[in-house]
Amino acid sequence: MTLKMSVADLKAFMTAEFPQVAQDFTVDAASPMHLTLRLTVTDRHLRPGGTVSGPAIFALADVGVYLAVLSMIGPQALAVTTNCSLDFMRKPRAGADLIAKVRLLKLGRVLAVGDALIYSDGSDAPVARASMTYSIPPARQD
Amino acid sequence: MTLKMSVADLKAFMTAEFPQVAQDFTVDAASPMHLTLRLTVTDRHLRPGGTVSGPAIFALADVGVYLAVLSMIGPQALAVTTNCSLDFMRKPRAGADLIAKVRLLKLGRVLAVGDALIYSDGSDAPVARASMTYSIPPARQD
Amino acid sequence: MTLKMSVADLKAFMTAEFPQVAQDFTVDAASPMHLTLRLTVTDRHLRPGGTVSGPAIFALADVGVYLAVLSMIGPQALAVTTNCSLDFMRKPRAGADLIAKVRLLKLGRVLAVGDALIYSDGSDAPVARASMTYSIPPARQD
Amino acid sequence: MTLKMSVADLKAFMTAEFPQVAQDFTVDAASPMHLTLRLTVTDRHLRPGGTVSGPAIFALADVGVYLAVLSMIGPQALAVTTNCSLDFMRKPRAGADLIAKVRLLKLGRVLAVGDALIYSDGSDAPVARASMTYSIPPARQD
Repeated sequence: MTLKMSVADLKAFMTAEFPQVAQDFTVDAASPMHLTLRLTVTDRHLRPGGTVSGPAIFALADVGVYLAVLSMIGPQALAVTTNCSLDFMRKPRAGADLIAKVRLLKLGRVLAVGDALIYSDGSDAPVARASMTYSIPPARQD
Repeated sequence: MTLKMSVADLKAFMTAEFPQVAQDFTVDAASPMHLTLRLTVTDRHLRPGGTVSGPAIFALADVGVYLAVLSMIGPQALAVTTNCSLDFMRKPRAGADLIAKVRLLKLGRVLAVGDALIYSDGSDAPVARASMTYSIPPARQD
Repeated sequence: MTLKMSVADLKAFMTAEFPQVAQDFTVDAASPMHLTLRLTVTDRHLRPGGTVSGPAIFALADVGVYLAVLSMIGPQALAVTTNCSLDFMRKPRAGADLIAKVRLLKLGRVLAVGDALIYSDGSDAPVARASMTYSIPPARQD
Repeated sequence: MTLKMSVADLKAFMTAEFPQVAQDFTVDAASPMHLTLRLTVTDRHLRPGGTVSGPAIFALADVGVYLAVLSMIGPQALAVTTNCSLDFMRKPRAGADLIAKVRLLKLGRVLAVGDALIYSDGSDAPVARASMTYSIPPARQD
């Protein structure tokens, strides 16, 4: 099992396809079936009291598992999220980036499934757990 | 069963507590255990191709069920989301607002549970289904 | 939209394909995109204290949404559950059957999604909420 | 962090509190925040074709995370499942036991969260992924 997209490929893909959010995320590491994604937390991700918003945590998990899928199957901007389950377990630490540690659990012909634990950078206790399912469009018959 | 917060109360609460996002959302209707919330879709909610982003749909469901809980128990800014499950079923219609139709299923002493169907305004086929759980902080002993 | 399988058809299908559990379940009603399924509660569904077990509630939701899908697409024993989300909200009433009120939310070419509220027979407060996704095998090219 | 209940304690607890299902399950290993639970698959767990039923997989995940919680907090038969999310990813292997590898992610005062990967014994590709939340009753004030 090898990567079809490197960290640099994933970065270029994000910048080209999702320019609105590409600057929020950094792929810290990628290996077969695993990926680590960082959310650089800025003011617009915060809620009153300095905690990271739920939608920002959702986005981190969604982008993280999505990029892990793409790293294995190549750039397919059409893969769509079909299901998501999230447990919010602890308050994120103020002033820290969020890190999603993603593992892929299934890469099928039609569906891909992965999950992620999300941490405040520097902490061992997860802020959130997420599982995501993607529907993979049928390959074009060339 | 009566509402502890009216549509106007909920709007004032959002403006005071969540000023960053209050202008995105409008409570179209509220009745005991039910609430309809509108996301006024603007460019920053969109992904390439004009579809509404996953985080914006998550936010709509989360704010919708949260406001439905508050409408029944009164303003408690400390209620926190503990679990979320989302099914993304159809592509939102370009150029249409999103409408969340929320129903509360449980209002316990410790946990509240609700779900929502999310529609493109004017359509009968749901874009997404969401269920949310909130942990309610113990009432202060005054 | 019309039913491809009647209540009698669904009963015959269950008896033929799932003889181990067919006698536990009764389709109380079926209409396009909606189905009501009853679990006749017996000792083997119970936990100490007389409450219905979690696996029995899971089975009721799974069979209920599955039969609702089949009622619309016809008998396809190969449709498989890919995702399930369950909220357990109240203790079932001792000595009462459980009733699942199912609605289908999406009947796609590849995925079907439905949810259910589960009640103790005679009660208005739901015991559990479930959402289920099924993967539908490609139609045979005859 | 140490275990409050050993493998032998957990077995005795299951036999005393859940006699109907205790013989189905074996705790293969327990360490702080981790537990491995085996379902000894017999005919009554099977569906036509020899695959393990969905309710049996649900039960394995539920009992596994529950016992992991008890191993850390001591015997509290009143902890109740409040939420469950399951992804069914592969067909279990015929004739093999199922193994749940559980990790606890949060042990709070009110809620405990854990997840599990479920494998056919001897296989590296997970059959299912589960996350479970439990509500922990307030400690008695002695």
